[in-house]
Amino acid sequence: MSNAVLERLRQESAARKSLLCVGLDVQTEKLPLSLRNQPDGLLKFIQEIISATADLAIAYKVNTAFYECMGLKGWMLLEQTASMLPSHALKIADCKRGDIGHTGGFYAKAFYEQLPFDAVTLHPYMGSDSIKPFLDYPDKLAFILAVTSNAGAVDFELQPMADGRPLWQHVMAISERFWQDGSIGYVAGATRPELLAEVREFAPTAPLLVPGVGAQGGSVAEVISAGYAGPGSLLINASRSILFASEGDDFAEKAREAALAMLAEMTEAF
Amino acid sequence: MSNAVLERLRQESAARKSLLCVGLDVQTEKLPLSLRNQPDGLLKFIQEIISATADLAIAYKVNTAFYECMGLKGWMLLEQTASMLPSHALKIADCKRGDIGHTGGFYAKAFYEQLPFDAVTLHPYMGSDSIKPFLDYPDKLAFILAVTSNAGAVDFELQPMADGRPLWQHVMAISERFWQDGSIGYVAGATRPELLAEVREFAPTAPLLVPGVGAQGGSVAEVISAGYAGPGSLLINASRSILFASEGDDFAEKAREAALAMLAEMTEAF
Repeated sequence: MSNAVLERLRQESAARKSLLCVGLDVQTEKLPLSLRNQPDGLLKFIQEIISATADLAIAYKVNTAFYECMGLKGWMLLEQTASMLPSHALKIADCKRGDIGHTGGFYAKAFYEQLPFDAVTLHPYMGSDSIKPFLDYPDKLAFILAVTSNAGAVDFELQPMADGRPLWQHVMAISERFWQDGSIGYVAGATRPELLAEVREFAPTAPLLVPGVGAQGGSVAEVISAGYAGPGSLLINASRSILFASEGDDFAEKAREAALAMLAEMTEAF
Repeated sequence: MSNAVLERLRQESAARKSLLCVGLDVQTEKLPLSLRNQPDGLLKFIQEIISATADLAIAYKVNTAFYECMGLKGWMLLEQTASMLPSHALKIADCKRGDIGHTGGFYAKAFYEQLPFDAVTLHPYMGSDSIKPFLDYPDKLAFILAVTSNAGAVDFELQPMADGRPLWQHVMAISERFWQDGSIGYVAGATRPELLAEVREFAPTAPLLVPGVGAQGGSVAEVISAGYAGPGSLLINASRSILFASEGDDFAEKAREAALAMLAEMTEAF
Protein backbone atom coordinates (compact mmCIF):
# COMPACT_ATOMS: atom_id res chain seq x y z
CA MET A 1 0.00 0.00 0.00
CA SER A 2 2.97 2.29 -0.11
CA ASN A 3 6.10 3.10 -1.97
CA ALA A 4 9.26 4.89 -0.87
CA VAL A 5 8.51 8.17 -2.65
CA LEU A 6 4.97 8.37 -1.28
CA GLU A 7 6.25 7.49 2.21
CA ARG A 8 8.79 10.31 2.01
CA LEU A 9 6.09 12.71 0.84
CA ARG A 10 3.96 11.81 3.85
CA GLN A 11 6.82 12.27 6.28
CA GLU A 12 7.92 15.58 4.80
CA SER A 13 4.38 16.91 4.69
CA ALA A 14 3.87 16.04 8.35
CA ALA A 15 7.27 17.29 9.51
CA ARG A 16 7.18 20.58 7.59
CA LYS A 17 3.45 21.10 8.08
CA SER A 18 3.32 21.85 4.40
CA LEU A 19 1.29 20.94 1.35
CA LEU A 20 3.23 23.31 -0.84
CA CYS A 21 4.36 22.39 -4.32
CA VAL A 22 6.27 25.15 -6.09
CA GLY A 23 5.74 25.19 -9.84
CA LEU A 24 8.91 26.21 -11.65
CA ASP A 25 7.21 27.69 -14.72
CA VAL A 26 9.98 30.03 -15.72
CA GLN A 27 10.03 32.56 -18.53
CA THR A 28 12.84 34.88 -19.54
CA GLU A 29 10.38 37.73 -20.14
CA LYS A 30 9.29 37.59 -16.51
CA LEU A 31 12.73 37.70 -14.95
CA PRO A 32 13.83 40.78 -13.02
CA LEU A 33 15.61 43.16 -15.39
CA SER A 34 18.98 42.49 -13.77
CA LEU A 35 18.75 38.80 -14.69
CA ARG A 36 16.88 39.05 -17.97
CA ASN A 37 19.88 39.70 -20.15
CA GLN A 38 22.32 37.40 -18.40
CA PRO A 39 23.02 34.23 -20.39
CA ASP A 40 22.38 32.09 -17.30
CA GLY A 41 19.68 34.37 -15.89
CA LEU A 42 17.01 31.68 -15.84
CA LEU A 43 19.28 29.23 -14.06
CA LYS A 44 20.20 31.80 -11.41
CA PHE A 45 16.54 32.69 -10.98
CA ILE A 46 15.57 29.05 -10.47
CA GLN A 47 18.45 28.52 -8.07
CA GLU A 48 17.36 31.47 -5.95
CA ILE A 49 13.71 30.46 -5.98
CA ILE A 50 14.65 26.97 -4.84
CA SER A 51 16.94 28.31 -2.09
CA ALA A 52 14.22 30.68 -0.90
CA THR A 53 11.55 27.97 -0.69
CA ALA A 54 13.42 24.70 -0.07
CA ASP A 55 12.50 24.41 3.61
CA LEU A 56 8.86 25.29 2.94
CA ALA A 57 8.03 23.19 -0.12
CA ILE A 58 7.52 19.44 -0.05
CA ALA A 59 7.40 19.24 -3.83
CA TYR A 60 8.56 21.04 -6.94
CA LYS A 61 6.73 20.76 -10.22
CA VAL A 62 8.55 21.45 -13.43
CA ASN A 63 6.27 22.18 -16.36
CA THR A 64 8.20 20.78 -19.30
CA ALA A 65 6.51 23.02 -21.90
CA PHE A 66 8.24 26.07 -20.45
CA TYR A 67 11.59 24.37 -21.04
CA GLU A 68 10.95 22.62 -24.35
CA CYS A 69 9.97 25.89 -26.01
CA MET A 70 13.59 26.96 -25.60
CA GLY A 71 14.88 24.00 -27.57
CA LEU A 72 18.14 22.33 -26.66
CA LYS A 73 19.01 25.11 -24.22
CA GLY A 74 15.69 24.47 -22.52
CA TRP A 75 16.25 20.73 -22.20
CA MET A 76 19.63 21.50 -20.66
CA LEU A 77 17.96 23.88 -18.20
CA LEU A 78 15.43 21.15 -17.41
CA GLU A 79 18.29 18.79 -16.55
CA GLN A 80 20.01 21.43 -14.44
CA THR A 81 16.78 22.34 -12.67
CA ALA A 82 15.92 18.73 -11.90
CA SER A 83 19.38 18.14 -10.43
CA MET A 84 19.11 21.25 -8.21
CA LEU A 85 15.88 20.22 -6.50
CA PRO A 86 16.29 19.46 -2.80
CA SER A 87 16.46 15.78 -1.98
CA HIS A 88 13.61 15.87 0.54
CA ALA A 89 11.14 17.20 -2.04
CA LEU A 90 8.98 15.26 -4.47
CA LYS A 91 10.31 16.05 -7.93
CA ILE A 92 7.40 16.21 -10.35
CA ALA A 93 7.76 16.44 -14.11
CA ASP A 94 4.50 18.05 -15.21
CA CYS A 95 5.01 16.62 -18.67
CA LYS A 96 1.46 15.44 -19.43
CA ARG A 97 2.72 12.56 -21.52
CA GLY A 98 0.78 9.46 -22.43
CA ASP A 99 1.62 6.72 -24.89
CA ILE A 100 1.53 2.96 -25.03
CA GLY A 101 3.90 0.03 -24.66
CA HIS A 102 7.42 0.67 -25.83
CA THR A 103 6.78 4.36 -26.39
CA GLY A 104 5.32 4.91 -22.95
CA GLY A 105 8.30 3.08 -21.53
CA PHE A 106 10.65 5.48 -23.29
CA TYR A 107 8.87 8.47 -21.77
CA ALA A 108 9.17 6.84 -18.37
CA LYS A 109 12.86 6.28 -19.04
CA ALA A 110 13.27 9.94 -20.04
CA PHE A 111 11.83 11.28 -16.79
CA TYR A 112 12.80 8.52 -14.35
CA GLU A 113 16.24 7.52 -15.61
CA GLN A 114 17.69 10.26 -17.83
CA LEU A 115 16.15 12.88 -15.56
CA PRO A 116 15.89 12.33 -11.79
CA PHE A 117 12.14 12.89 -11.37
CA ASP A 118 10.04 11.04 -8.80
CA ALA A 119 6.72 11.65 -10.48
CA VAL A 120 5.04 12.60 -13.75
CA THR A 121 1.65 13.82 -14.88
CA LEU A 122 -0.16 11.63 -17.43
CA HIS A 123 -2.96 11.90 -19.97
CA PRO A 124 -5.36 8.94 -19.53
CA TYR A 125 -7.11 9.15 -22.92
CA MET A 126 -5.40 6.10 -24.48
CA GLY A 127 -6.34 3.87 -21.55
CA SER A 128 -4.68 1.70 -18.96
CA ASP A 129 -1.88 0.48 -21.24
CA SER A 130 -0.71 4.08 -21.51
CA ILE A 131 -0.38 4.29 -17.72
CA LYS A 132 1.14 0.88 -17.14
CA PRO A 133 4.66 1.64 -18.47
CA PHE A 134 5.09 4.32 -15.79
CA LEU A 135 4.06 1.89 -13.05
CA ASP A 136 6.78 -0.52 -14.05
CA TYR A 137 9.10 1.74 -12.08
CA PRO A 138 8.77 0.98 -8.38
CA ASP A 139 8.83 3.91 -5.98
CA LYS A 140 7.63 6.47 -8.48
CA LEU A 141 4.32 8.32 -8.54
CA ALA A 142 2.12 8.87 -11.61
CA PHE A 143 -0.39 11.70 -11.32
CA ILE A 144 -3.18 11.00 -13.78
CA LEU A 145 -5.21 13.91 -15.13
CA ALA A 146 -8.67 13.57 -13.61
CA VAL A 147 -10.45 16.94 -13.42
CA THR A 148 -8.40 19.86 -14.64
CA SER A 149 -8.92 23.51 -13.77
CA ASN A 150 -9.49 24.83 -17.29
CA ALA A 151 -12.78 25.81 -18.89
CA GLY A 152 -12.40 23.03 -21.47
CA ALA A 153 -12.74 20.40 -18.73
CA VAL A 154 -16.46 20.48 -19.55
CA ASP A 155 -15.80 19.24 -23.09
CA PHE A 156 -14.90 15.67 -22.08
CA GLU A 157 -13.73 15.25 -18.48
CA LEU A 158 -17.04 16.33 -16.97
CA GLN A 159 -19.29 14.79 -19.59
CA PRO A 160 -21.50 11.94 -18.38
CA MET A 161 -20.86 8.47 -19.74
CA ALA A 162 -23.59 5.91 -20.45
CA ASP A 163 -23.87 5.03 -16.74
CA GLY A 164 -24.40 8.67 -15.79
CA ARG A 165 -20.98 9.07 -14.20
CA PRO A 166 -18.63 11.63 -15.74
CA LEU A 167 -15.57 10.56 -17.72
CA TRP A 168 -13.18 11.54 -14.91
CA GLN A 169 -14.80 8.99 -12.61
CA HIS A 170 -14.23 6.29 -15.21
CA VAL A 171 -10.62 7.39 -15.45
CA MET A 172 -10.27 7.06 -11.69
CA ALA A 173 -12.16 3.77 -11.52
CA ILE A 174 -9.79 2.19 -14.04
CA SER A 175 -6.74 3.73 -12.40
CA GLU A 176 -7.77 2.23 -9.07
CA ARG A 177 -6.84 -1.18 -10.45
CA PHE A 178 -3.26 -0.03 -10.12
CA TRP A 179 -3.68 1.83 -6.88
CA GLN A 180 -2.90 -1.08 -4.58
CA ASP A 181 0.80 -0.30 -4.52
CA GLY A 182 0.32 3.40 -3.92
CA SER A 183 1.93 4.56 -7.12
CA ILE A 184 -1.02 6.52 -8.55
CA GLY A 185 -2.17 10.02 -7.76
CA TYR A 186 -4.49 12.42 -9.56
CA VAL A 187 -4.41 15.93 -10.90
CA ALA A 188 -7.52 17.73 -9.71
CA GLY A 189 -8.03 21.44 -10.32
CA ALA A 190 -8.59 23.94 -7.52
CA THR A 191 -11.06 26.08 -9.41
CA ARG A 192 -13.91 23.64 -8.73
CA PRO A 193 -13.75 22.78 -4.98
CA GLU A 194 -17.01 20.85 -5.10
CA LEU A 195 -15.48 18.55 -7.69
CA LEU A 196 -12.32 18.21 -5.64
CA ALA A 197 -14.49 16.87 -2.81
CA GLU A 198 -16.00 14.32 -5.20
CA VAL A 199 -12.53 13.29 -6.37
CA ARG A 200 -11.52 12.81 -2.73
CA GLU A 201 -14.58 10.72 -2.06
CA PHE A 202 -13.67 8.55 -5.02
CA ALA A 203 -10.06 8.10 -3.90
CA PRO A 204 -10.06 8.44 -0.12
CA THR A 205 -6.28 8.40 0.35
CA ALA A 206 -4.66 8.95 -3.06
CA PRO A 207 -2.28 11.90 -3.42
CA LEU A 208 -3.97 14.76 -5.22
CA LEU A 209 -1.92 17.33 -7.09
CA VAL A 210 -3.94 20.52 -7.16
CA PRO A 211 -2.99 23.34 -9.50
CA GLY A 212 -5.09 26.45 -9.98
CA VAL A 213 -4.57 28.06 -6.58
CA GLY A 214 -3.46 31.69 -6.49
CA ALA A 215 -3.14 33.28 -9.92
CA GLN A 216 -5.85 30.97 -11.30
CA GLY A 217 -8.28 31.81 -8.51
CA GLY A 218 -8.80 28.77 -6.26
CA SER A 219 -8.49 29.27 -2.48
CA VAL A 220 -6.16 27.28 -0.22
CA ALA A 221 -8.80 26.93 2.49
CA GLU A 222 -11.40 25.54 0.10
CA VAL A 223 -8.90 23.10 -1.41
CA ILE A 224 -7.85 21.80 2.00
CA SER A 225 -11.42 21.47 3.19
CA ALA A 226 -12.34 19.54 0.04
CA GLY A 227 -9.24 17.46 -0.50
CA TYR A 228 -7.07 17.00 2.59
CA ALA A 229 -6.95 13.46 3.96
CA GLY A 230 -3.74 13.40 5.97
CA PRO A 231 -0.08 14.10 5.19
CA GLY A 232 0.88 13.15 1.65
CA SER A 233 -2.68 13.23 0.40
CA LEU A 234 -2.59 16.76 -0.97
CA LEU A 235 -0.13 18.91 -2.86
CA ILE A 236 -1.19 22.47 -3.57
CA ASN A 237 0.76 23.92 -6.43
CA ALA A 238 1.57 27.60 -6.79
CA SER A 239 3.68 28.90 -9.64
CA ARG A 240 3.27 32.52 -10.70
CA SER A 241 2.10 33.76 -7.30
CA ILE A 242 5.43 32.66 -5.81
CA LEU A 243 7.87 32.98 -8.71
CA PHE A 244 6.77 36.42 -9.75
CA ALA A 245 5.68 37.84 -6.38
CA SER A 246 8.04 40.70 -7.19
CA GLU A 247 9.35 41.92 -10.52
CA GLY A 248 12.42 43.38 -8.85
CA ASP A 249 15.67 42.13 -7.41
CA ASP A 250 13.90 41.19 -4.20
CA PHE A 251 12.10 38.39 -6.08
CA ALA A 252 13.55 35.61 -3.93
CA GLU A 253 12.63 37.37 -0.68
CA LYS A 254 9.12 38.06 -1.95
CA ALA A 255 8.81 34.48 -3.23
CA ARG A 256 9.61 33.26 0.28
CA GLU A 257 7.06 35.64 1.76
CA ALA A 258 4.41 34.36 -0.66
CA ALA A 259 5.32 30.76 0.20
CA LEU A 260 5.17 31.53 3.93
CA ALA A 261 1.77 33.16 3.48
CA MET A 262 0.51 30.00 1.78
CA LEU A 263 1.96 27.86 4.56
CA ALA A 264 0.17 30.01 7.11
CA GLU A 265 -3.10 29.27 5.31
CA MET A 266 -2.23 25.58 5.31
CA THR A 267 -1.45 25.15 9.02
CA GLU A 268 -5.10 24.84 9.91
CA ALA A 269 -5.13 21.50 8.11
CA PHE A 270 -2.71 19.94 10.58
CA MET B 1 -11.08 25.26 -46.03
CA SER B 2 -7.40 24.77 -46.61
CA ASN B 3 -4.00 25.67 -45.35
CA ALA B 4 -0.63 25.59 -47.08
CA VAL B 5 0.66 22.47 -45.34
CA LEU B 6 -2.49 20.50 -46.09
CA GLU B 7 -2.45 21.73 -49.69
CA ARG B 8 1.14 20.54 -50.08
CA LEU B 9 0.23 17.18 -48.57
CA ARG B 10 -2.57 16.77 -51.12
CA GLN B 11 -0.32 17.67 -54.02
CA GLU B 12 2.51 15.40 -52.91
CA SER B 13 0.15 12.51 -52.25
CA ALA B 14 -1.35 12.84 -55.73
CA ALA B 15 1.96 13.37 -57.52
CA ARG B 16 3.83 10.56 -55.78
CA LYS B 17 0.82 8.23 -55.63
CA SER B 18 1.74 7.70 -52.02
CA LEU B 19 0.07 7.64 -48.62
CA LEU B 20 3.29 6.63 -46.93
CA CYS B 21 4.42 8.14 -43.64
CA VAL B 22 7.71 6.76 -42.38
CA GLY B 23 7.94 6.63 -38.58
CA LEU B 24 11.47 7.37 -37.42
CA ASP B 25 11.29 5.41 -34.18
CA VAL B 26 14.97 4.75 -33.78
CA GLN B 27 16.76 2.71 -31.15
CA THR B 28 20.48 2.12 -30.77
CA GLU B 29 19.89 -1.55 -29.88
CA LYS B 30 18.25 -2.11 -33.25
CA LEU B 31 20.97 -0.61 -35.41
CA PRO B 32 23.07 -2.84 -37.62
CA LEU B 33 26.18 -3.92 -35.73
CA SER B 34 28.42 -1.76 -37.89
CA LEU B 35 26.59 1.39 -36.75
CA ARG B 36 25.69 0.40 -33.21
CA ASN B 37 28.97 1.39 -31.64
CA GLN B 38 29.61 4.52 -33.67
CA PRO B 39 29.00 7.72 -31.71
CA ASP B 40 26.85 9.11 -34.52
CA GLY B 41 25.42 5.75 -35.55
CA LEU B 42 21.81 6.78 -34.99
CA LEU B 43 22.22 9.95 -37.02
CA LYS B 44 23.80 8.04 -39.91
CA PHE B 45 21.04 5.45 -39.74
CA ILE B 46 18.33 8.13 -39.88
CA GLN B 47 20.12 9.89 -42.74
CA GLU B 48 20.25 6.70 -44.76
CA ILE B 49 16.63 5.79 -44.05
CA ILE B 50 15.52 9.24 -45.16
CA SER B 51 17.65 9.06 -48.33
CA ALA B 52 16.29 5.62 -49.15
CA THR B 53 12.64 6.65 -48.75
CA ALA B 54 12.53 10.40 -49.53
CA ASP B 55 10.95 10.04 -52.97
CA LEU B 56 8.40 7.50 -51.71
CA ALA B 57 7.20 9.06 -48.47
CA ILE B 58 4.90 12.06 -48.27
CA ALA B 59 5.37 12.36 -44.51
CA TYR B 60 7.79 11.49 -41.74
CA LYS B 61 6.68 10.98 -38.19
CA VAL B 62 9.14 11.43 -35.37
CA ASN B 63 8.06 9.81 -32.13
CA THR B 64 9.54 12.11 -29.50
CA ALA B 65 9.66 9.44 -26.77
CA PHE B 66 12.37 7.58 -28.64
CA TYR B 67 14.50 10.72 -28.56
CA GLU B 68 13.66 12.09 -25.11
CA CYS B 69 14.72 8.83 -23.46
CA MET B 70 18.28 9.65 -24.57
CA GLY B 71 18.27 12.96 -22.71
CA LEU B 72 20.09 15.97 -24.09
CA LYS B 73 21.74 13.87 -26.78
CA GLY B 74 18.31 12.71 -27.85
CA TRP B 75 16.90 16.23 -28.07
CA MET B 76 19.88 17.15 -30.21
CA LEU B 77 19.19 14.15 -32.46
CA LEU B 78 15.56 15.25 -32.66
CA GLU B 79 16.68 18.67 -33.90
CA GLN B 80 19.08 17.10 -36.40
CA THR B 81 16.45 14.66 -37.61
CA ALA B 82 13.81 17.34 -38.04
CA SER B 83 16.21 19.48 -40.07
CA MET B 84 17.12 16.56 -42.36
CA LEU B 85 13.56 15.79 -43.42
CA PRO B 86 12.88 16.49 -47.10
CA SER B 87 11.06 19.75 -47.75
CA HIS B 88 8.24 18.13 -49.73
CA ALA B 89 7.24 15.88 -46.84
CA LEU B 90 4.87 16.62 -43.97
CA LYS B 91 7.01 16.73 -40.83
CA ILE B 92 5.02 15.27 -37.96
CA ALA B 93 6.12 15.42 -34.34
CA ASP B 94 4.33 12.48 -32.75
CA CYS B 95 4.66 14.13 -29.37
CA LYS B 96 1.17 13.44 -27.94
CA ARG B 97 1.21 16.66 -25.97
CA GLY B 98 -1.82 18.44 -24.60
CA ASP B 99 -2.00 21.35 -22.20
CA ILE B 100 -3.91 24.58 -21.87
CA GLY B 101 -3.40 28.27 -22.52
CA HIS B 102 0.14 29.51 -22.00
CA THR B 103 1.50 26.01 -21.51
CA GLY B 104 -0.09 24.66 -24.66
CA GLY B 105 1.32 27.64 -26.50
CA PHE B 106 4.80 26.79 -25.29
CA TYR B 107 4.50 23.25 -26.60
CA ALA B 108 3.34 24.66 -29.94
CA LYS B 109 6.34 26.99 -29.90
CA ALA B 110 8.66 24.06 -29.16
CA PHE B 111 7.52 22.03 -32.16
CA TYR B 112 6.57 24.79 -34.61
CA GLU B 113 9.23 27.41 -33.92
CA GLN B 114 12.19 25.84 -32.12
CA LEU B 115 11.77 22.71 -34.20
CA PRO B 116 10.63 22.88 -37.84
CA PHE B 117 7.63 20.53 -37.63
CA ASP B 118 4.48 20.99 -39.70
CA ALA B 119 2.24 18.92 -37.49
CA VAL B 120 1.85 17.42 -34.03
CA THR B 121 -0.25 14.74 -32.37
CA LEU B 122 -2.42 15.86 -29.45
CA HIS B 123 -4.23 14.38 -26.47
CA PRO B 124 -7.79 15.75 -26.35
CA TYR B 125 -8.61 14.86 -22.71
CA MET B 126 -8.36 18.42 -21.34
CA GLY B 127 -10.78 19.76 -23.94
CA SER B 128 -10.89 22.35 -26.67
CA ASP B 129 -8.71 24.89 -24.88
CA SER B 130 -5.88 22.34 -24.98
CA ILE B 131 -6.17 22.14 -28.78
CA LYS B 132 -6.66 25.83 -29.46
CA PRO B 133 -3.03 26.96 -28.79
CA PHE B 134 -1.84 24.72 -31.63
CA LEU B 135 -4.39 26.21 -34.02
CA ASP B 136 -3.06 29.69 -33.41
CA TYR B 137 -0.33 28.77 -35.87
CA PRO B 138 -1.64 29.09 -39.41
CA ASP B 139 -0.56 26.47 -41.91
CA LYS B 140 0.12 23.77 -39.37
CA LEU B 141 -1.80 20.55 -38.82
CA ALA B 142 -2.87 19.14 -35.45
CA PHE B 143 -3.65 15.41 -35.41
CA ILE B 144 -5.95 14.76 -32.48
CA LEU B 145 -6.01 11.31 -30.93
CA ALA B 146 -9.39 9.82 -31.80
CA VAL B 147 -9.29 6.01 -31.84
CA THR B 148 -5.90 4.53 -31.13
CA SER B 149 -4.70 1.07 -32.07
CA ASN B 150 -3.90 -0.21 -28.56
CA ALA B 151 -5.95 -2.62 -26.45
CA GLY B 152 -6.55 0.11 -23.85
CA ALA B 153 -8.62 2.10 -26.36
CA VAL B 154 -11.61 0.23 -24.90
CA ASP B 155 -11.02 1.81 -21.48
CA PHE B 156 -12.19 5.30 -22.47
CA GLU B 157 -12.04 6.07 -26.20
CA LEU B 158 -14.58 3.43 -27.15
CA GLN B 159 -16.80 3.81 -24.10
CA PRO B 160 -20.30 5.14 -24.77
CA MET B 161 -21.22 8.53 -23.38
CA ALA B 162 -24.69 9.43 -22.09
CA ASP B 163 -26.00 9.89 -25.64
CA GLY B 164 -24.84 6.43 -26.65
CA ARG B 165 -21.99 7.69 -28.83
CA PRO B 166 -18.47 6.69 -27.86
CA LEU B 167 -16.04 9.23 -26.39
CA TRP B 168 -14.01 9.41 -29.61
CA GLN B 169 -17.06 10.73 -31.48
CA HIS B 170 -17.43 13.48 -28.89
CA VAL B 171 -13.76 14.32 -29.36
CA MET B 172 -14.30 14.59 -33.09
CA ALA B 173 -17.56 16.53 -32.76
CA ILE B 174 -15.88 19.18 -30.63
CA SER B 175 -12.80 19.28 -32.85
CA GLU B 176 -15.00 19.90 -35.88
CA ARG B 177 -15.65 23.40 -34.54
CA PHE B 178 -12.08 24.15 -35.52
CA TRP B 179 -12.09 22.15 -38.72
CA GLN B 180 -13.28 24.96 -40.99
CA ASP B 181 -9.75 26.11 -41.78
CA GLY B 182 -8.43 22.62 -42.43
CA SER B 183 -5.93 22.58 -39.62
CA ILE B 184 -7.24 19.51 -37.78
CA GLY B 185 -6.62 15.85 -38.52
CA TYR B 186 -7.10 12.71 -36.47
CA VAL B 187 -5.07 9.75 -35.32
CA ALA B 188 -7.04 6.60 -36.03
CA GLY B 189 -5.55 3.15 -35.53
CA ALA B 190 -5.30 0.57 -38.29
CA THR B 191 -6.00 -2.42 -36.09
CA ARG B 192 -9.77 -1.76 -36.16
CA PRO B 193 -10.69 -1.09 -39.83
CA GLU B 194 -14.42 -1.00 -39.05
CA LEU B 195 -13.77 1.87 -36.64
CA LEU B 196 -11.63 3.62 -39.20
CA ALA B 197 -14.63 3.58 -41.55
CA GLU B 198 -16.75 5.17 -38.81
CA VAL B 199 -14.09 7.83 -38.23
CA ARG B 200 -14.10 8.58 -41.94
CA GLU B 201 -17.86 8.86 -41.97
CA PHE B 202 -17.64 11.34 -39.13
CA ALA B 203 -14.98 13.46 -40.84
CA PRO B 204 -15.46 12.98 -44.59
CA THR B 205 -12.35 14.87 -45.71
CA ALA B 206 -10.10 15.35 -42.66
CA PRO B 207 -6.56 13.97 -42.87
CA LEU B 208 -6.27 10.72 -40.93
CA LEU B 209 -2.94 9.58 -39.57
CA VAL B 210 -3.08 5.82 -39.30
CA PRO B 211 -0.48 3.91 -37.30
CA GLY B 212 -0.65 0.21 -36.64
CA VAL B 213 -0.01 -1.09 -40.14
CA GLY B 214 2.71 -3.69 -40.62
CA ALA B 215 4.41 -4.76 -37.39
CA GLN B 216 1.19 -4.05 -35.43
CA GLY B 217 -0.96 -6.09 -37.78
CA GLY B 218 -3.34 -3.83 -39.75
CA SER B 219 -3.49 -4.26 -43.55
CA VAL B 220 -2.87 -1.48 -46.07
CA ALA B 221 -5.78 -2.59 -48.26
CA GLU B 222 -8.26 -2.54 -45.37
CA VAL B 223 -7.05 0.87 -44.22
CA ILE B 224 -7.39 2.36 -47.69
CA SER B 225 -10.80 0.84 -48.21
CA ALA B 226 -11.99 2.21 -44.87
CA GLY B 227 -10.28 5.57 -44.78
CA TYR B 228 -9.21 6.89 -48.17
CA ALA B 229 -11.08 9.97 -49.38
CA GLY B 230 -8.72 11.51 -51.91
CA PRO B 231 -5.12 12.74 -51.81
CA GLY B 232 -4.13 14.20 -48.45
CA SER B 233 -6.92 12.44 -46.60
CA LEU B 234 -4.87 9.48 -45.45
CA LEU B 235 -1.38 8.89 -44.12
CA ILE B 236 -0.42 5.30 -43.42
CA ASN B 237 2.47 5.12 -41.01
CA ALA B 238 5.03 2.35 -40.98
CA SER B 239 7.98 2.38 -38.61
CA ARG B 240 9.59 -0.91 -37.66
CA SER B 241 8.61 -2.73 -40.85
CA ILE B 242 10.65 -0.20 -42.86
CA LEU B 243 13.40 0.85 -40.45
CA PHE B 244 14.32 -2.65 -39.41
CA ALA B 245 13.50 -4.56 -42.59
CA SER B 246 17.04 -5.86 -42.36
CA GLU B 247 19.36 -6.15 -39.38
CA GLY B 248 22.39 -5.97 -41.64
CA ASP B 249 24.31 -3.34 -43.54
CA ASP B 250 21.77 -3.53 -46.35
CA PHE B 251 19.19 -1.91 -44.04
CA ALA B 252 18.67 1.13 -46.30
CA GLU B 253 18.18 -0.99 -49.41
CA LYS B 254 15.75 -3.27 -47.57
CA ALA B 255 13.95 -0.25 -46.10
CA ARG B 256 13.43 1.05 -49.62
CA GLU B 257 12.15 -2.34 -50.74
CA ALA B 258 9.70 -2.41 -47.84
CA ALA B 259 8.55 1.12 -48.67
CA LEU B 260 8.15 0.19 -52.34
CA ALA B 261 6.12 -2.86 -51.38
CA MET B 262 3.80 -0.65 -49.34
CA LEU B 263 3.49 1.80 -52.23
CA ALA B 264 2.57 -1.07 -54.53
CA GLU B 265 -0.26 -1.95 -52.14
CA MET B 266 -1.33 1.69 -52.12
CA THR B 267 -1.53 2.29 -55.87
CA GLU B 268 -4.96 0.72 -56.10
CA ALA B 269 -6.32 3.70 -54.18
CA PHE B 270 -5.45 6.14 -56.94
